Amino acid sequence: MQFSEELLTLKDQVRFDKSFKVGKYDKIVIAGMGGSGIAGRIFSEIYDEKPVFLVDDYDIPSFVDDKTEFIAISYSGNTEETISASEEAAKKHANVHAITSGGSLSKMGFDTIIIPSGLQPRSSIGYLLMPLVNTFIKPKIGDVDEAYRLLSETDKDNEEEKSIASEIYNGEHIPVIYGSRPFRAIAYRWKTQFNENAKVLAYSNYFSELNHNDTMPLKDTYRKDEFYFLVFRSDDSRFSKRITVTEKITGNSFRMVDVRGSSLLAKLFYLIHFGDYLTYHLAELRGVDPQDVSLIEKLKKEIA
Amino acid sequence: MQFSEELLTLKDQVRFDKSFKVGKYDKIVIAGMGGSGIAGRIFSEIYDEKPVFLVDDYDIPSFVDDKTEFIAISYSGNTEETISASEEAAKKHANVHAITSGGSLSKMGFDTIIIPSGLQPRSSIGYLLMPLVNTFIKPKIGDVDEAYRLLSETDKDNEEEKSIASEIYNGEHIPVIYGSRPFRAIAYRWKTQFNENAKVLAYSNYFSELNHNDTMPLKDTYRKDEFYFLVFRSDDSRFSKRITVTEKITGNSFRMVDVRGSSLLAKLFYLIHFGDYLTYHLAELRGVDPQDVSLIEKLKKEIA
Repeated sequence: MQFSEELLTLKDQVRFDKSFKVGKYDKIVIAGMGGSGIAGRIFSEIYDEKPVFLVDDYDIPSFVDDKTEFIAISYSGNTEETISASEEAAKKHANVHAITSGGSLSKMGFDTIIIPSGLQPRSSIGYLLMPLVNTFIKPKIGDVDEAYRLLSETDKDNEEEKSIASEIYNGEHIPVIYGSRPFRAIAYRWKTQFNENAKVLAYSNYFSELNHNDTMPLKDTYRKDEFYFLVFRSDDSRFSKRITVTEKITGNSFRMVDVRGSSLLAKLFYLIHFGDYLTYHLAELRGVDPQDVSLIEKLKKEIA
Repeated sequence: MQFSEELLTLKDQVRFDKSFKVGKYDKIVIAGMGGSGIAGRIFSEIYDEKPVFLVDDYDIPSFVDDKTEFIAISYSGNTEETISASEEAAKKHANVHAITSGGSLSKMGFDTIIIPSGLQPRSSIGYLLMPLVNTFIKPKIGDVDEAYRLLSETDKDNEEEKSIASEIYNGEHIPVIYGSRPFRAIAYRWKTQFNENAKVLAYSNYFSELNHNDTMPLKDTYRKDEFYFLVFRSDDSRFSKRITVTEKITGNSFRMVDVRGSSLLAKLFYLIHFGDYLTYHLAELRGVDPQDVSLIEKLKKEIA
């Protein structure tokens, strides 16, 4: 499947309706790396009924116990950090679940949701995220439908994404993405998509934390014109004010990205898909294969 | 006080022996922004007996309740996000504590540790961090003494820091700092010190997560030579192997930073201080005032 075809599957992924049965628990721990880990990051920002703790490492925290819902996410099912963390969680009698398309993780005896294989992990974000949303948030059908519609529209018209990609390409810019709650993790998702799809270094940060550090160099850093600041528009007046004032006092003109949609679910997926197309177009302009992650595979082999 | 004099106070700060009395709790929530927020970030990486949740925003998660130890950290005591979060926590009957040098936060009736005023918040990291360490970890006297000794040595000899600063200055490089557990937060601390002290944009990331995204562009990104990769050496073989292999397959030569010390506390403070001097020297070379954060102050006024 071509990468552009992978992108067309996202709209259907939001209709993926599997969920876990969970018992009594007082905290959730989600383990996952890279493209699989993003699902946990996004979920942890939109759910706060119980503490959600993310593990993107080999080891799990001491507090994991039999009151912990532990969810291991690995698209391939063979991510060594996630396998290691899951084994530790099982030893501590956590209630371990898994989301994977196969691999070792699917054979460890955990309560597992199997998702379709054949995609890049980062192109399966709907399959990876929706089981979390279905289990703990239970979205309205209308919200899922709205997300489906917005994703379909983005598939048909992504001229704005293409135009931003051109600007970045022409200036050989270093993309920096600024989000704000509840889209901090999406800003990070864009950073990783720039990395993996377009093979350019990119960074993300978020309001208002960045007003306590990035703000100083935004005015007087060297190489300032080499950066390209993409900022998600916020309908929270506390953040929108900070964005406007930051632009003004640092003498920058941010490229604002409108967040379309009315439900949170639709907004999240709309923004995700915007970043998918933006980085896909940049890959095309650069003449690099957006699917190619051979270096990451090579690294996995060398350290195994 | 000159910035260089502020740096000389750090060794004494690690001997700051105040702590909170805590009752029964099942989770810890720490609120703080920027230079004050770093203390929570560092603490959350070295303590895992109970879940630690960080708040760097106006609002607190729904799960905050009367079993929550809530610690508000604001050097000035006037950080609007932290004040807002603390008020919300008090309403939810969390056990609220504060660490501050004064301001509104000191007058809100919380159980408060007052720390010396007159420093930049980022230069008071010892005062901000040690109450957390003293309360929940209880360091050995020998570890505190080791940290004191290493910091004193760094105060007397920071030639290596100066030499790295020169390289970065001469190439007008964009610093990127790669850490690994338990020093991920220190990598972020360095990023913020580059921002606030030297007024240059800088970024941080950590192993092994970065092997799932940054690794691709590390080989073929445009502008590759403009970056300067600082990597903390790790004595965890899983990370040290990843560092070596990443360098090799991406064709980069990282500037490795040795982590001196034997106790974790000493290592943490040694690395913090290394970054302090490195960014201070870069500020000097650039001819900018490391103490100047007038833009951040201006922003605070404009949004108030």
